[in-house]
Amino acid sequence: MSSLHVIPPALERLIRSFSQLPGIGSKTATRLALNILRRPPAEAREMAAALAELHSAIRLCSRCMTFSEKDPCLICSDPRRDGSLVCVVEQPADLMAIEKTDSYRGHYHVLHGVLSPIDGIGPDEIKVRELVSRIKTGAIDEVLIATSSTVPGEATASYLIDRLQQLPVKLSRLACGIPMGMDIKYADQYTLARAIESRSKLG
Amino acid sequence: MSSLHVIPPALERLIRSFSQLPGIGSKTATRLALNILRRPPAEAREMAAALAELHSAIRLCSRCMTFSEKDPCLICSDPRRDGSLVCVVEQPADLMAIEKTDSYRGHYHVLHGVLSPIDGIGPDEIKVRELVSRIKTGAIDEVLIATSSTVPGEATASYLIDRLQQLPVKLSRLACGIPMGMDIKYADQYTLARAIESRSKLG
Ligand SMILES: [Zn+2]
Ligand SMILES: [Zn+2]
Repeated sequence: MSSLHVIPPALERLIRSFSQLPGIGSKTATRLALNILRRPPAEAREMAAALAELHSAIRLCSRCMTFSEKDPCLICSDPRRDGSLVCVVEQPADLMAIEKTDSYRGHYHVLHGVLSPIDGIGPDEIKVRELVSRIKTGAIDEVLIATSSTVPGEATASYLIDRLQQLPVKLSRLACGIPMGMDIKYADQYTLARAIESRSKLG
Repeated sequence: MSSLHVIPPALERLIRSFSQLPGIGSKTATRLALNILRRPPAEAREMAAALAELHSAIRLCSRCMTFSEKDPCLICSDPRRDGSLVCVVEQPADLMAIEKTDSYRGHYHVLHGVLSPIDGIGPDEIKVRELVSRIKTGAIDEVLIATSSTVPGEATASYLIDRLQQLPVKLSRLACGIPMGMDIKYADQYTLARAIESRSKLG
């Protein structure tokens, strides 16, 4: 007996839709869909409405390329922020993580990806051209490259350093090292090597 | 700087909606919502449509109380299945799990919950009355109680045994014991105790 007989098509449709999301297998998708079915219909309608308006309400800020309802976004249009410093991140989620630290007052540039030649993702597939033209306007003093310390993140950083060092702008990179509060003996060897290499001089 | 400034309201709305689901914290909800935003709008529209039709397309089968688009459901209306045997489960997901084993050919009764006096859930809050009236029609020979072997599942089973043994029907319970393939030394003490207690006679 196939499960098609016991899962109503309308439920199967939602399960299939949820299953396309990253990290949601068919078991989790089924659990979520059944849970929604047990909850008040108004909650499912609210989720449906939020999904339906999502893409139409949100666009990319034409300056920093982050997701925003307004253009320019609230960060780019905030007069208290320093537009001469631009932090380059892979995704809007990275921007949100940095904002949460409450320790950065500059602007951003969201690449929407990393270089990945094997997947056919070169500089034209991410927002590199837009970054270069922002720098060429001359209003930017420093570009802080904050891609991830993963292999593709590092490759993207190297490419950007190569490409941007011909332009009249200072380049910097997020410091890598031992995470705050971590015992040195628990740090992996690559993190530790990087921490030694990037050691800060004390006197 | 509050995250309200960096998460567009339309995105925040979807994150809030996802966060209400069990096991989805605000971090996972954010990751899912951002992922949907990066995917084609047609996928978000499909998910919205599936959610919007969910509650209107699906009702409870008036016999077995499972989720179904048809009434009676495909199991209750399947002439090849044995309607004299009814398996009582907590939720539709349990029914699905049993169907997947392909080793049960009877009907079901879905309680939609377990007894939980502390949460105000008594027999009238789950589908006990419906089960009793099904049994009273006289077409059922055996009721197989398949609630979970958790504290509330066992309490619900005990209540059902008490209540149903006055009726002209045989009662049975899923066997409890060592899971298939499990080394006895890894079984927890309660499982092992139950397995000893429920030992099957061999001669
Ligand atoms: Zn912006
Ligand atoms: Zn049914």
